[in-house]
Amino acid sequence: MAFELSDKKYSVNIFLSAGKCNAEGELPVQSLFQYLIDAATAHANSLNFGYSRLIAQNCTWVLSRIAIEMKSYPKINENFIITTWIVSTNRVYSDRAFMVKDASGNVIGYAMTTWAAIDINARRAANIEKLFPEGLPDTGEFPPIKFSKRIASIDNPDSIHNYVFRYCDIDCNRHVNSTRYVELILNLFSVDYFDSRIISNIEISYHSEAYYGEQVEIRSTQHENDSDTICFEIRRGETPLTRVKITVKDRPSLFSHYFAE
Amino acid sequence: MAFELSDKKYSVNIFLSAGKCNAEGELPVQSLFQYLIDAATAHANSLNFGYSRLIAQNCTWVLSRIAIEMKSYPKINENFIITTWIVSTNRVYSDRAFMVKDASGNVIGYAMTTWAAIDINARRAANIEKLFPEGLPDTGEFPPIKFSKRIASIDNPDSIHNYVFRYCDIDCNRHVNSTRYVELILNLFSVDYFDSRIISNIEISYHSEAYYGEQVEIRSTQHENDSDTICFEIRRGETPLTRVKITVKDRPSLFSHYFAE
Repeated sequence: MAFELSDKKYSVNIFLSAGKCNAEGELPVQSLFQYLIDAATAHANSLNFGYSRLIAQNCTWVLSRIAIEMKSYPKINENFIITTWIVSTNRVYSDRAFMVKDASGNVIGYAMTTWAAIDINARRAANIEKLFPEGLPDTGEFPPIKFSKRIASIDNPDSIHNYVFRYCDIDCNRHVNSTRYVELILNLFSVDYFDSRIISNIEISYHSEAYYGEQVEIRSTQHENDSDTICFEIRRGETPLTRVKITVKDRPSLFSHYFAE
Repeated sequence: MAFELSDKKYSVNIFLSAGKCNAEGELPVQSLFQYLIDAATAHANSLNFGYSRLIAQNCTWVLSRIAIEMKSYPKINENFIITTWIVSTNRVYSDRAFMVKDASGNVIGYAMTTWAAIDINARRAANIEKLFPEGLPDTGEFPPIKFSKRIASIDNPDSIHNYVFRYCDIDCNRHVNSTRYVELILNLFSVDYFDSRIISNIEISYHSEAYYGEQVEIRSTQHENDSDTICFEIRRGETPLTRVKITVKDRPSLFSHYFAE
């Protein structure tokens, strides 16, 4: 992994080793998600608006929303490059964009995220403009990807699965790791399902934090006008924690040597 | 992440971002395990005895056994360094060692691993000496850590938990990822348990592969002479898949600002 910082943009070059691949020999979408968060963290740290700066004021960055759109995914034993930059910032939110390139330099995807700063003690939003009076390195440059208007609540689910959050689901903020919700949802599908499809879009909105030992419902429903789009809501009782919308498309091909058996 | 290769040893320097930490703000042992495998993979690839070379002969490396001993774990927002080298190789096995240093250069742990090469089609061991007639870069240098004689079968468990392997458990070899077994076991414990303890030793032996959709039993038993040592066996029916032995010790302290609530 090597990085560079220029023109308010941060890039990181990552090698995808076999051990980090999914069943299809590609970067799992939840790992991509984690790499995006890591790139954002590294960018913020490198310009001193990251964790260390905020924690000194009892605050931390939290992800409020993410949308990812991928033409294809990084493949086993290949490098890929994530570039990230801040689009714009106001008192309550900072919007950050990402671009993903494959080893040949082709753009294979984009992501858009919205972050808030929260006061750890009060557990409520902090004023970003007050936290960073010098301003953040906004670029005004939007990626070619937009959030949906709103991911809807699911009151009449097609299916409901129950889950209890375990030790490995919890992160250093003592709540459920943002990327774990994605695993919960992918685990509702079979290997066969993803052998013939890729996730072309995934969008997540975070509504409330979840903690160790809590039991939740994973509700799902197919989109009424689009059979390739499935919506999920993770609820604790009546409280929505996270809503996820994924869209799949047909997979062009799979590495054949993984199916030698 | 930056790496170097010298004297038959490979080193990689890794930054531990917040998103990769466990509830205690440290590197999770299953992530350490994955980084060790990645370092081994990168070392092998850099000297052309890795995946690409083996797959051309329809073979792949598989981990047979691992023992990790840690004085402490890498901490949030700090770098750590993994160094790896091959100890010795015979027809059937290649033994590989690891050393882990913290950001200040103190050795905080060691690991020892045993690898076999398997023929993907025949699903049986290949002759390593025939695969690499030029030899592997053996050093003869043993780390100060040894495997137990053998991790025993558990015929009279203290407890049994059931689990069905899901999509995210499967790796690109189409079997359950080696590090996933560790998560299954850690998930039997509470956050409180690891707030006051660290895993000082973990040893794993792999006996048989597991696949998507298979139901397994996780059997556990406390070591008869040592209450800080717990043994686990993951079984599919009567077939042992993986055996794990962990030893915990009291944790000196936790980062206080993670407990601000």
